[in-house]
Amino acid sequence: MKLSDGVEQAIHSITMLAGLSDEGVLSAAALAEFHGVSASYLLKHLQALSSAGILDAVPGPKGGYRLARSPGRITLLDIVLAVEGSGPAFRCKEIRRRGPNPLPARMFTTPCSINAAMLRAENAYRAELRRVSIADILSDLETFDDGTIAARSCLFFEAHERISGRKA
Amino acid sequence: MKLSDGVEQAIHSITMLAGLSDEGVLSAAALAEFHGVSASYLLKHLQALSSAGILDAVPGPKGGYRLARSPGRITLLDIVLAVEGSGPAFRCKEIRRRGPNPLPARMFTTPCSINAAMLRAENAYRAELRRVSIADILSDLETFDDGTIAARSCLFFEAHERISGRKA
Repeated sequence: MKLSDGVEQAIHSITMLAGLSDEGVLSAAALAEFHGVSASYLLKHLQALSSAGILDAVPGPKGGYRLARSPGRITLLDIVLAVEGSGPAFRCKEIRRRGPNPLPARMFTTPCSINAAMLRAENAYRAELRRVSIADILSDLETFDDGTIAARSCLFFEAHERISGRKA
Repeated sequence: MKLSDGVEQAIHSITMLAGLSDEGVLSAAALAEFHGVSASYLLKHLQALSSAGILDAVPGPKGGYRLARSPGRITLLDIVLAVEGSGPAFRCKEIRRRGPNPLPARMFTTPCSINAAMLRAENAYRAELRRVSIADILSDLETFDDGTIAARSCLFFEAHERISGRKA
């Protein structure tokens, strides 16, 4: 089981976007440059985050991305599901129904205990990720930051933030 | 995030192998036929389960697979880690250290809160899977079975079980 690299990139990008002014956006290219990652790969995930209602995509030559809602209302689970898809990690193919001598249909009225156990684990995983918001991550970062991280972001915003009008 | 189909196949194969007599083994081909899945794909996972100490691989023309330990000592977590690898789902690439203006090395003495939160979720997931053994799955199956499942397995064992000597 492996999450795509897009999850880490999406979380860091959103953490960065949380620092923009109300009128500001950042382009996918700027976010990719800042994190030293592929712009086309990151763009795919920014688009997914936008489709999921986590980011606003502002079109046009001065366009870019910004948060669609406050950092306290974006959880790690929201981001993981937007990037990875919302299906469960374990997808039962009902192999009990295959083979030359499958079980009769009346045996499949309830999910099997294997699928149920795998889903309980998935729910525990999701519950933990739902507990942590981008506001929590930013708060941890502030505790830890001796000023270096904030200064680095400020310099980057000065060079790359685009002003695209206040949020609706 | 998606587990491979090998996880479902491995769990069902192990559940089936738990029904063998002490001297019995089943070939990868028989297990694949019973479940209507690719023998070469299943074989890869049976080999991983054998490397992980969950299955014994008995070599030779009358060889095959059997459990290496009792069903109560094989958890769903053991199987998932054997099939999927033991690394965490979230693998931090430390993209904070990349880009034209990376954070200085002194900022990386502790894992970042993003990685810590993702690992907490993974631990919750693993704890749930560690709670469920193959003995639990078999016990649920017995409660649910009106005799159809047991009869189907018996017929299959009559046709395919190989006698390869008592376990060491």
